[in-house]
Amino acid sequence: MILDEPVDDAEGSVRALRLEERPLPVPKRGEVLVRVEASVCNPSDQMFLRGRYRCARKPPCGPGFEGAGVVVGSGGGMIGRFLLGKRVACGGNEPGGGTWAEYFVASVMLCFPLRKDVDFVAGATMLVNPLTALAFVDMAKQRRASAIVHTAAASQLGRLLAIFARERDLPVIHVVRREAQAELLRELGAEHVLNSSDDDHDEKLRLASERLGATLAFDAIAGTSPGKLLAALPHHSTVVSYGKLTGLSLSAVDPADLLFDGKQLIGFHLNRWLASAGLWWTLSAGRRIQAALASGRIATSVRCEVGFDGFADALVEYAADMGAGKVILRPGH
Amino acid sequence: MILDEPVDDAEGSVRALRLEERPLPVPKRGEVLVRVEASVCNPSDQMFLRGRYRCARKPPCGPGFEGAGVVVGSGGGMIGRFLLGKRVACGGNEPGGGTWAEYFVASVMLCFPLRKDVDFVAGATMLVNPLTALAFVDMAKQRRASAIVHTAAASQLGRLLAIFARERDLPVIHVVRREAQAELLRELGAEHVLNSSDDDHDEKLRLASERLGATLAFDAIAGTSPGKLLAALPHHSTVVSYGKLTGLSLSAVDPADLLFDGKQLIGFHLNRWLASAGLWWTLSAGRRIQAALASGRIATSVRCEVGFDGFADALVEYAADMGAGKVILRPGH
Repeated sequence: MILDEPVDDAEGSVRALRLEERPLPVPKRGEVLVRVEASVCNPSDQMFLRGRYRCARKPPCGPGFEGAGVVVGSGGGMIGRFLLGKRVACGGNEPGGGTWAEYFVASVMLCFPLRKDVDFVAGATMLVNPLTALAFVDMAKQRRASAIVHTAAASQLGRLLAIFARERDLPVIHVVRREAQAELLRELGAEHVLNSSDDDHDEKLRLASERLGATLAFDAIAGTSPGKLLAALPHHSTVVSYGKLTGLSLSAVDPADLLFDGKQLIGFHLNRWLASAGLWWTLSAGRRIQAALASGRIATSVRCEVGFDGFADALVEYAADMGAGKVILRPGH
Repeated sequence: MILDEPVDDAEGSVRALRLEERPLPVPKRGEVLVRVEASVCNPSDQMFLRGRYRCARKPPCGPGFEGAGVVVGSGGGMIGRFLLGKRVACGGNEPGGGTWAEYFVASVMLCFPLRKDVDFVAGATMLVNPLTALAFVDMAKQRRASAIVHTAAASQLGRLLAIFARERDLPVIHVVRREAQAELLRELGAEHVLNSSDDDHDEKLRLASERLGATLAFDAIAGTSPGKLLAALPHHSTVVSYGKLTGLSLSAVDPADLLFDGKQLIGFHLNRWLASAGLWWTLSAGRRIQAALASGRIATSVRCEVGFDGFADALVEYAADMGAGKVILRPGH
């Protein structure tokens, strides 16, 4: 699929996608050609379609940041030859084009050979969200946070985070907006779930953060959310912005929280994390994720699997209710 | 002087001050009793009077964070005995009371013996602003910023920063609102002065930051200013909030600047800086500042010197036009 130009509208941006036959791309050294069996749409793809995602890939181009398939060509190099013929999960934001296509050129550094018991659909969703959830847990360990706070916590990412954090004994204060979302997280074993619609939410969050030593918070909402987190967390806490679900800029951030209390506001992006965490972290994270998928400890909730024909309609429905699971694109169907 | 309760109004907070006779305070070990000869009102004092300054000192109490005088008593300890009888600059936010008084109990760690050629008025203003300016320069070196940006750059602090930064070969992009302020800074030798009232200011700031490698910015304005700095500075830049001159919370901070471009927003407070920089930095900074004062390289611009009687009126005038210099309180006059 090709996006000629971003359209800053949820439905319009999806409708602007069109199909085009292109010559098979040729991988360079350190790259492989993957025949895509499944790919997925994440919130970052939605931002990309709307022109709100800053990366090396610029329209006109093919979207899609992750997928899974079979390596059918190599541009050379030892790892590329090793990967030939293998089933892989792959990702990246190469300028050439994305995973919403029959073929995708991936860097060998972002190709994970799939275990036999992990299918293409699970593989197609094992990078962006699961790697981010693992990165959050490891960032908490690095920064010696005794606990963390997560907003929009019922998201796909939030549910993965609940599971990975529990496995690594990291308490998470999950903040959601609706009681049904709180229930969903409690079923996954989440212990500390707060509802931001409660009148005394700010005070509850302050008390819970203090009690658990939550000095790190992750926010995908933007708007007033990061400022509220900064106000509620203990001295010397860090709030990490990793998304903009409301589409709003940050506001109501009290500079007093920064200057008197030594709190700070930073950003998280998976690509920057992977670059600094290094290859071994990435490989080990890939193994941990596949083990969790194979054992059924984690699973991506899937709304539907469609071919190119039904993809745009499915994405419009997805944008209206992201809680109902991911749309999986199956180019061969 | 005593502030019973903060009043969140520039004039009201000053009018609420009252005089009271109190028994002479008794210094504890590690403290000295200073007979105050001169003290000063800084923007941080104004915030304190309005209840917007978070620190260990809580009204009802005496305000004033810095001053100069003669050590007339010691609570014990080697440094305390050494300081007895000495002329000193002193500061701190001890809960007991501040420098707007005839006597002040200071920690020996924040008492700087004055050179003979530095008078009490210069001494009374040599801590808060000059130490902050030196801290900014050293923070730039620590963080390997090739240049820095400073907003509200014609302030007393901004002028000191211009001088110290030039002496240490650190380029500063000074951002002011009026042409007269730009002139004032150019007279001090400032090379890069931008006027935020210019239509193309944002673009000029972006280009200058990129050209000079300004990856660190200091902002005392709050409101939309830190967000604009974040947007204008190169990738991986840090914006440091150290004040709230507009009284506004931060707004219009694009989370994309944080997450995609790895920029961050932190706070600066002199007390935290001194605690982490350590005693030797503080002592050496005190010497550098006195040398600069004695040689005339830096000077505090003084509006008037008054006793307790005229202090409130003078502070109201100061609040209306801070550019016209500091109000000096001379308790003995």
